[in-house]
Amino acid sequence: MIIVFKQNAKENEVKRVLDKVEKLGLKTHISQGEETLIVGLVGDTTRVDPKRIEVEESVERIMKVSEPYKLANRAFHPEDSVINVSGIPVGGKALTLIAGPCSVESKEQVLEVARRVKASGANLLRGGAFKPRTSPYSFQGMGSTALDLLVEAKEETGLPIVTELMSEKHIDEFNDKVDLVQIGARNMQNFDLLKEVGQRIKKPVLLKRGLSNTYEEWLMSAEYIMANGNPNVILCERGIRTFETYTRNTLDLQAIPVLKRLTHLPVIIDPSHAGGKWWLVEPMAKAAVVAGCDGLMIEVHNDPENALCDGPQSLKPDRYDNLLKDIRKLEAVR
Amino acid sequence: MIIVFKQNAKENEVKRVLDKVEKLGLKTHISQGEETLIVGLVGDTTRVDPKRIEVEESVERIMKVSEPYKLANRAFHPEDSVINVSGIPVGGKALTLIAGPCSVESKEQVLEVARRVKASGANLLRGGAFKPRTSPYSFQGMGSTALDLLVEAKEETGLPIVTELMSEKHIDEFNDKVDLVQIGARNMQNFDLLKEVGQRIKKPVLLKRGLSNTYEEWLMSAEYIMANGNPNVILCERGIRTFETYTRNTLDLQAIPVLKRLTHLPVIIDPSHAGGKWWLVEPMAKAAVVAGCDGLMIEVHNDPENALCDGPQSLKPDRYDNLLKDIRKLEAVR
Amino acid sequence: MIIVFKQNAKENEVKRVLDKVEKLGLKTHISQGEETLIVGLVGDTTRVDPKRIEVEESVERIMKVSEPYKLANRAFHPEDSVINVSGIPVGGKALTLIAGPCSVESKEQVLEVARRVKASGANLLRGGAFKPRTSPYSFQGMGSTALDLLVEAKEETGLPIVTELMSEKHIDEFNDKVDLVQIGARNMQNFDLLKEVGQRIKKPVLLKRGLSNTYEEWLMSAEYIMANGNPNVILCERGIRTFETYTRNTLDLQAIPVLKRLTHLPVIIDPSHAGGKWWLVEPMAKAAVVAGCDGLMIEVHNDPENALCDGPQSLKPDRYDNLLKDIRKLEAVR
Amino acid sequence: MIIVFKQNAKENEVKRVLDKVEKLGLKTHISQGEETLIVGLVGDTTRVDPKRIEVEESVERIMKVSEPYKLANRAFHPEDSVINVSGIPVGGKALTLIAGPCSVESKEQVLEVARRVKASGANLLRGGAFKPRTSPYSFQGMGSTALDLLVEAKEETGLPIVTELMSEKHIDEFNDKVDLVQIGARNMQNFDLLKEVGQRIKKPVLLKRGLSNTYEEWLMSAEYIMANGNPNVILCERGIRTFETYTRNTLDLQAIPVLKRLTHLPVIIDPSHAGGKWWLVEPMAKAAVVAGCDGLMIEVHNDPENALCDGPQSLKPDRYDNLLKDIRKLEAVR
Repeated sequence: MIIVFKQNAKENEVKRVLDKVEKLGLKTHISQGEETLIVGLVGDTTRVDPKRIEVEESVERIMKVSEPYKLANRAFHPEDSVINVSGIPVGGKALTLIAGPCSVESKEQVLEVARRVKASGANLLRGGAFKPRTSPYSFQGMGSTALDLLVEAKEETGLPIVTELMSEKHIDEFNDKVDLVQIGARNMQNFDLLKEVGQRIKKPVLLKRGLSNTYEEWLMSAEYIMANGNPNVILCERGIRTFETYTRNTLDLQAIPVLKRLTHLPVIIDPSHAGGKWWLVEPMAKAAVVAGCDGLMIEVHNDPENALCDGPQSLKPDRYDNLLKDIRKLEAVR
Repeated sequence: MIIVFKQNAKENEVKRVLDKVEKLGLKTHISQGEETLIVGLVGDTTRVDPKRIEVEESVERIMKVSEPYKLANRAFHPEDSVINVSGIPVGGKALTLIAGPCSVESKEQVLEVARRVKASGANLLRGGAFKPRTSPYSFQGMGSTALDLLVEAKEETGLPIVTELMSEKHIDEFNDKVDLVQIGARNMQNFDLLKEVGQRIKKPVLLKRGLSNTYEEWLMSAEYIMANGNPNVILCERGIRTFETYTRNTLDLQAIPVLKRLTHLPVIIDPSHAGGKWWLVEPMAKAAVVAGCDGLMIEVHNDPENALCDGPQSLKPDRYDNLLKDIRKLEAVR
Repeated sequence: MIIVFKQNAKENEVKRVLDKVEKLGLKTHISQGEETLIVGLVGDTTRVDPKRIEVEESVERIMKVSEPYKLANRAFHPEDSVINVSGIPVGGKALTLIAGPCSVESKEQVLEVARRVKASGANLLRGGAFKPRTSPYSFQGMGSTALDLLVEAKEETGLPIVTELMSEKHIDEFNDKVDLVQIGARNMQNFDLLKEVGQRIKKPVLLKRGLSNTYEEWLMSAEYIMANGNPNVILCERGIRTFETYTRNTLDLQAIPVLKRLTHLPVIIDPSHAGGKWWLVEPMAKAAVVAGCDGLMIEVHNDPENALCDGPQSLKPDRYDNLLKDIRKLEAVR
Repeated sequence: MIIVFKQNAKENEVKRVLDKVEKLGLKTHISQGEETLIVGLVGDTTRVDPKRIEVEESVERIMKVSEPYKLANRAFHPEDSVINVSGIPVGGKALTLIAGPCSVESKEQVLEVARRVKASGANLLRGGAFKPRTSPYSFQGMGSTALDLLVEAKEETGLPIVTELMSEKHIDEFNDKVDLVQIGARNMQNFDLLKEVGQRIKKPVLLKRGLSNTYEEWLMSAEYIMANGNPNVILCERGIRTFETYTRNTLDLQAIPVLKRLTHLPVIIDPSHAGGKWWLVEPMAKAAVVAGCDGLMIEVHNDPENALCDGPQSLKPDRYDNLLKDIRKLEAVR
């Protein structure tokens, strides 16, 4: 961190700031230029809130030099993390393929979809049990019943299961039944939930990017989970909110190479939620693969016309099957 | 809701859609134009997820005619709601003035600030106990201890207290000690928390707008609380995320007249978080008053240079006092 | 400007960068910290494109300390600029009131509106002659004929006229007939037009903010005009593009106090284009006045229902008259 | 277009609106529902500004059913357009590869880069002559001299040339020397320039998307050029402005499948400007290819460290060569 002082900063004001900085446990390195006094701070600046220095009247601005996250930072962990999801490695060479319905609606539906995506080559089964819905009047998911149906599907197909945790009150149940615990976009900065997940969830966590959160905020949320005890975090880009309304959200595929540089954590892409239209899923899934993602999370439904949730963005099993064939070819040359 | 069919939609496909709509409990009103078949849906469309119809191949697009919220909708509740916060009316003619530190840091601090803002004319005391912080390494608030200090300040000054609830596990404590329960911007779409607040919080709720949430999403979150049993919701605009980075967020004052048209709920403005700079608070607070807001929430700190949180956006008590004098003059002519 | 080098930067790489910087005419001030080498650049950094240094592999990042604009910068021109528009001062104590129709449609219309707004107290008459329309099939304005009608209205009412210049080919005509030359939001970064306006326009310029341009980019566009020879620039905020679609754009009133700090140029607010709805104009105009703007530009039409352009955001003359009465009261206490 | 009337709309008000609509040359199809009166408009609605109807007090809202563009619309031109750029087809099966320096800096530079990209397989040579720069103090391009150097490079290598037109005053020169005329992002809504380009430019036009323009606005700008006489428009996505600041802009690759659905015009991707960092170019170029783009525009510089413009986003010729090898492999399986 670097402090740039105002040109007319008085000596006693500067001293006051330097004393404060030293009380925060940092050393200072002073550089008096012709016009400007610049002070570099040496030490663990992740523990220092820049606003506590920026508030001083003599300070022109504060500049961060190093990232504010540590455990998630590639600088301190240069090799890629490979995270074990009940035997399936996420990260590293292989592509992880997560598929399944937006929400679990019945035993027949989830079993049928599970069999189909397994046959196509998926590694993990997704399915919503507790659903975050904008309207209190929309279908809110089948809850615990859905978890049990997912477990049945897992028993039959062998596919470990991924589903979203929306409240700390379900943590024990998720530890029992779920293989990869998803934190949704709208809870990315639900810091109390992140802490609980860090401390009490014994399974890997799939952390979706918030609708308007920066890469840095996203990695800080991963850091919350990691600093609270759970190092197994997988990141999932699912589209960000922009001015464009034709698509549900704008898929940010630059996130893949950027995150690969900033962090060692695996990066999954969810093209279904990003675009909100099934015909955007195929080109975006393929694009994500060649851009270097570690996996794809795709919504597949055997009967989208009657889906209780997000039908327009769901692929039918046949289309998913074709998509995976294309992806295998791209994987060979990416 | 209106369904516009594709020009080449086949009769049996159209029938399929109309049957589905009728199963959802709605009546249809068919209008066959020269080129386009348009069907109006009659009945309680708030219960219908438009995506369940949009998914049909024969459908060109769905258009919403009425808003998807009911309890929060001014159309069904034309007069302004006035919400009683432990004796202080919010909404209606008077301006509610909420002030206090970003976070409670000590008994001395909170008492000193409470006395000062009370003397200036504030009606409610704010102070953070549980703090949502981007970094796990930043000060996270004093928690329950802070609640007790706020209660002490209330006992001395008579000012009812406002503070943020971040987790359902504190609901009982908040019901005991807090007068107005804040839901923060980052939890605006934490739907599980909204449900719990609707069902179990016995006090009014101050619902902040999420950083990138539309008016409609915001009102749907109010609807969650109301539909779950708590009708006493106050809305608080606190700045939205845009491309501009000079300010922390962009304060959207058009929200005031828009919300006054869409809903009967009171609207409070928080200029401190919006701009993130103390010198933006005064002009924006004054602007909000003449634009018709029902109240202001402003951060005041007796020693911002040493504040543990958000010092740069806090007013000193003297400045707050001057601001309220200006606001009294504007109130007289607004 | 400050250069932060990578921790592993080699001596010869650093030398290369410092040589380059010195060739660009700047002196360097070197500060070797424990971990990081930081170099402050001294001299006229407005002439240096930071990317030319950022491109070097040994460079971690570049940080700007001073603003890249000079002529528009309050630091070098502390007192407010007051700009003379054919006898009407803009900036300083008085509020400049610009009003008139979105586009000039007929002699009767423009004369009628001019008389009415003059009677209410407006100082300047606006009216579109050349119109920037999203669709090539929409009404594009009456062109030169409209300029002549505006001149007639000026002759009768004495109100100097404001209208938008869209192409350099009209510059001579604008120099003859127009008192304040508007550059529209969509041309804010039409750099060739800005240069021509700086060199050849002899009248003051009203520079609107682009739909998604930062304060800094906006001031750089003012700098283009000023550096090319025309120092008389007035800034006009007219709403920015955000994710919210209920309103046409989001009016950014924080721009007023921010610009007052960064620049000495006057700041006008256009609440008509920002919200796109007539009922947002009144509260936002009042808010802008108490937030400290130097003037208001408001669309007034005698028959909005039959306006050829932007009817929904136009006030009728009676409403405008009432608004100015309210504004006079606020002016007295702002 | 559909008009939804307010529930309490009076008969004479409705009649007024219907008369107005008929004067605009449209037929009406009336559908009286139980609660709401809905009127469908039949005819060429591209010629009708919806605001002229929305302004009426009895109107609740206007809904567009068909797109407001015609010549660019795939509905009226189902097969892909293939545009001939001096013998190079753009659109259709082949991938067009545009490469070259951000700006032309010297004869040696442009010849060297042209030879290298030609050898790697590029089809068209780009190079900035007139440069849109945020700062008036930055290098503004070599102007006409640069055009002549590009022509020399074309003579030697046979590569047709692409460069940006910033002002109508250069149109004759561009018609003489340039093969594909670029309209930059900041001029996407410079409607006067679009008209001139439509009427007077005899070569194909490469229209970049504005930084915060929707697909519809972009296609309306293409429509401007086409409706004014030049049907040969190629679209180029180059990143949009979002809240994320780590990258220069956010590359929107969903634009590819969306535009393929909405329009018959070819779609080119520019990954260099989108991310602003050379190491983002390779993964994003590959992603764009498999997502179905018709071509890539990539900045290549033989000496990025000394580039006068945008060095950080330029590839060196060797890297470009490797990238094209990868792309050939992907092309075979996309």
